Order: sequence, then structure tokens, then C-alpha cells
Amino acid sequence: MSGKVFVVGLGPGAPEMQTPQASRALDLADDLVGYGPYVARVPARPDQRRHASDNREEISRARHALELAAAGRTVAVVSSGDAGVFAMASAVFEAIETGETSWRSLDVEIVPGVSAMFAVAARVGAPLGNDFCAISLSDNLKPWDLVLSRLTAAASARFVIALYNVQSRARPWQLGAALSTLRQVLPADTPVVFARAVSREDEEIVIVDLAQADRQPADMRTLVMVGTESTRRIDRGDGRAWLYTPRSIEKRS
Amino acid sequence: MSGKVFVVGLGPGAPEMQTPQASRALDLADDLVGYGPYVARVPARPDQRRHASDNREEISRARHALELAAAGRTVAVVSSGDAGVFAMASAVFEAIETGETSWRSLDVEIVPGVSAMFAVAARVGAPLGNDFCAISLSDNLKPWDLVLSRLTAAASARFVIALYNVQSRARPWQLGAALSTLRQVLPADTPVVFARAVSREDEEIVIVDLAQADRQPADMRTLVMVGTESTRRIDRGDGRAWLYTPRSIEKRS
Repeated sequence: MSGKVFVVGLGPGAPEMQTPQASRALDLADDLVGYGPYVARVPARPDQRRHASDNREEISRARHALELAAAGRTVAVVSSGDAGVFAMASAVFEAIETGETSWRSLDVEIVPGVSAMFAVAARVGAPLGNDFCAISLSDNLKPWDLVLSRLTAAASARFVIALYNVQSRARPWQLGAALSTLRQVLPADTPVVFARAVSREDEEIVIVDLAQADRQPADMRTLVMVGTESTRRIDRGDGRAWLYTPRSIEKRS
Repeated sequence: MSGKVFVVGLGPGAPEMQTPQASRALDLADDLVGYGPYVARVPARPDQRRHASDNREEISRARHALELAAAGRTVAVVSSGDAGVFAMASAVFEAIETGETSWRSLDVEIVPGVSAMFAVAARVGAPLGNDFCAISLSDNLKPWDLVLSRLTAAASARFVIALYNVQSRARPWQLGAALSTLRQVLPADTPVVFARAVSREDEEIVIVDLAQADRQPADMRTLVMVGTESTRRIDRGDGRAWLYTPRSIEKRS
């Protein structure tokens, strides 16, 4: 088969955070496949076909991309952030494993990108400066009790936690339940970052204490980052502050 | 103060994985500060001063950068991968917090990058397709029993685990001890990726079972990634394979 599938991480949104490797893959593509708002980020070109689809259609979208590649076309499947973090790379491999045997010989290239959590961390300081984890709060694809047990394990072991897919119209209560679980383990003054549309024109970032985190609005474009008891706030003297987690941790007595 | 500090994530090594934002920061800098091999990645320029230092001198290096900026210079502190992941961003903020009060009014911009773990994941498939964490195995900066407790917590909660700083001449036994701890929690056939110098000319990547992982050589340039029991291997029929972790997890009975 002569076709090719790129799975491209576009970065968080700002064009200056999209790698040259990603730009090259988009240039080479005959077809763009992806969730509508991500396809819309790529400048239109008359000789390139655009296949924008709804959210939550990852596997059918991945199959479509593989069919196009099997027919000899060069396809770019686009994701926001990194292609492999709660994004399309895993869906493409799931479609390959459960699909046509011939798809296993297709040329598939995953193009990594700057993830939303790294862009958020950069905006507020260096909260991911020690061990950290990333957890998706979506219970469409895994049992909610697994989400809760991972939250408890991560907070108890003092990982900084980046929460993805925190809220949507169909999932209105999960973030509140997650924060409630974290409050059982972490101090009330643990810093929590709410970052919406990081690196985009409408970016909004606030830092609150865990005790107040329930009052913050969130939606599909919000990433939430929860510090540890060692995460520190540096007041800059003008109302602004940096947040960072030191690389070193003292032995607890 | 008119100076500025950029803390720049150069990406894992390949120039095509360095963002335009990072390239712009390097262009603007009067001074480059960083660990020798990372400074060496930036093409030399007659009007740009280069301050290359040894490894494990992060705080003094950060102070030097802040002093240069306080004197009015534009400084780029360079890191490999992302600037905030086991890299210089956290050291710069620690130096600010413990240093001159006037440094708090300096203009500091963190420039995120493609981390080594995302580049490694992209090379082998999509192993980070579900919840994951990143742990540094260096016990220079934190107690070893904390490293072990985090490994156990992460593996028990079925996070995919990216291990950074796995081995050096001064830390020869930590990786073996970490793998031994993981073997107490994870099945012997859990896939483990050993990736050295990802995206560089001398890149070497192998996938082994956890039971055999002790036999793999590793050094300062090696990242190790440990899957979960749901991480899957797709054999391509020609000896090659992809590794991916599905987005969905069934309820355990």
C-alpha cells in the first residue's frame, strides 16, 4: 500500500507552538481528518480535502483515515496538543488492531506536539517541576470508580496532577466529584490552576486554593492542574504570582 | 529591570521538533545558558555569548542567568525536551524565590517543548493513550523511598509510567531497583520501552517484557516507559510491532 497516515499534534493552539514536523506533515497531506475545531485551525488549501467530524467519533474517524490511506492517499489526522495524549493516536491504533489486516502494513507516523499541560505549566511557572501525572476525567471510556482510585493514588503519592476532559454538557458533575475526592487527601490550600484555551486569544488562567476550586467555571476547553503540598507560590509584589514545584523534596520525619 | 529570561524547551533533539517559539527565543537571546550538550545544539552566532556548564549545577546556572538578565541582557536558558519537565524552569523559580527580591520583577518567559516521553511514545505507537505519569529516578533531590512509593502507587493504579533520569555513572543501581519494585505489582509480560537518544541520529529503541527489562543497557540519555496490563502490541507481520494503550478500559469484575 502506498498511502500514509500522519497523526499530528498541532500543539495547544498558538501557531508558534506547532512544530515544523507538524507543519510539514500538514503540507504533505491530501486529506485532513479530525474533530471540526482542530481541522479549522489548519489554513484551507484548494487541493486538500477536509473531513471534519463531531467529537466522540474517534474510532470511525480513525477508520475513515485508514481507508483513505489504504486507497493510496496521504492523510493527516489532526489532534490538539500532543497526538498521543487523550487524542487520536491511540484511536488510530485501536482501529488498526480491530480492522483490516492489510492496514498493519500501512505507513503510520505519529507527530508529537506540545501538550496543553506543558503550555499551561509554562504560563504559570513550573508546577510540573517534580513527578506528575495526567488523568482524563471522562467516564465515557472507563469506569468512574477507576478515575477516583487513580485520583486518590496520585494525590496520596504527591504527584502533581493534570486533569483533562474535565467537563462537558454531558458530563456536568465529574469535576466536582473529582475535586471532592482530592480534598480528602490534599490540604485545603493546595494550589489549583484552571486554564481555558491556553495560548489562544481567549486564554483565561486563574489560580485558586483547592478549597475554593468548586466555584470555578470549566468547560471542554479547560485544563485543571492540581499541585502538591510542596508546590510553592512566589508573589511578585504587583499582585501577580508564579507557581512552581521544587525539584527537591526533603525526607519527611 | 529591562532584561529578560527565556527558559526554552528545545524538544528531544531533532530540529524539526523544536517549535518556532523556541527558535524565536534563541534568536532574541544575547546569552545562552545551559548544560553543555544542550547549548551545543544551538548553532553558534558571533554576537551571542554561550555559557555552558556541567550537569547537576542547575541552581547556580539559574542564578547566573538571572544575574545576566538583571544587568539588562536577554538570556535563553536551554533545556532538552520541555522546559518544565525535570528541567530548568523549576530551578529558575527556585533561584528567584531564594535570591534577590528584585529578581521577582524580571520578565521570565517559559517556552514549552516536545518532551522526550511524547517523542518516544510517537516512535513506538501510542503507549500514553490512557492515564500516565512521569517519575524521575534520581535520588539526588528526593528520598529513594519516596521514589519507590510513587512507583508502587502508579503501577497499582495502572498508570503508564515514563521514567526519567534512569541511570548515570553516579546512580548505577536505581533502575534495577525500580524495575524490581514494578515486578511486584505488574505482570511479567508488561511491555517496557527502552529509548535512547530519541529523534537523534543515534536513536535506539527496543521493546522488551518487564521480566527481561533488567538485561537492557541504559544511561543518562535513556528514557524507560512501562505499560500497563491493558497496553497492547500490534504485530505488523514483518517482525515490527506497534505498542498502544487503548483509551477505553472495561470495568473489572
